[in-house]
Amino acid sequence: MPRAIVDTSYSTSPLDGEPMEQTEAERLASVLKALADANRLRLISLIQSSPAGEACVCELTEPLGLSQPTISHHLRILTDAGLLERDKRGVWAYFRLVPEALTIIAGSITPPKQRHRRAAPAPRSR
Amino acid sequence: MPRAIVDTSYSTSPLDGEPMEQTEAERLASVLKALADANRLRLISLIQSSPAGEACVCELTEPLGLSQPTISHHLRILTDAGLLERDKRGVWAYFRLVPEALTIIAGSITPPKQRHRRAAPAPRSR
Repeated sequence: MPRAIVDTSYSTSPLDGEPMEQTEAERLASVLKALADANRLRLISLIQSSPAGEACVCELTEPLGLSQPTISHHLRILTDAGLLERDKRGVWAYFRLVPEALTIIAGSITPPKQRHRRAAPAPRSR
Repeated sequence: MPRAIVDTSYSTSPLDGEPMEQTEAERLASVLKALADANRLRLISLIQSSPAGEACVCELTEPLGLSQPTISHHLRILTDAGLLERDKRGVWAYFRLVPEALTIIAGSITPPKQRHRRAAPAPRSR
């Protein structure tokens, strides 16, 4: 099974404090690349808004107007990134969101609240 | 000035409710693409964590070990996406974060809280 690339060890936002290290930036960039595609965003949204919170490839081809292999390709990228989980039941695989993963990514790009509003000039000493 | 592509009219998360429309998905994907690069994430992080909350190109080349044209290229992508704002003062341009933009994107990918936890089977009637 491919390694999920969402780092669930993030406890705080990488934007909140010290400059981000190269390794951390590369890991976050990989997950954001998996998300940064209109078809994959729509797949996540369709799965998320489906009544059971899960969907199989067979239910996703028609709303997106894409072929089954193309849908499967996008689902694999999202699953490899740790954003979806896959459950094989009978002939079909069902996909559901890993809500923690999206919450972690959202937290990673949330800036600390208004920390850097343009400050008034410091008063001069004497 | 290029049009900022963060849509500040989002009032709720596109993941919270109806499936995302193609246009909305394309717009969000464009902004995520601007973010989905390790050097650009590090630039945002460096600017964010600088004491004044802003930085000029001259201050960003050394920590990233990249040339000035390369830094300028990445800063332009982030500015065009509406994630940074640019303030020209004298010979240098200073860049600061648009915190609202990142907050909106983070909100756009945050799933509704545990809405789709695997539900218990519905009780059978009679």
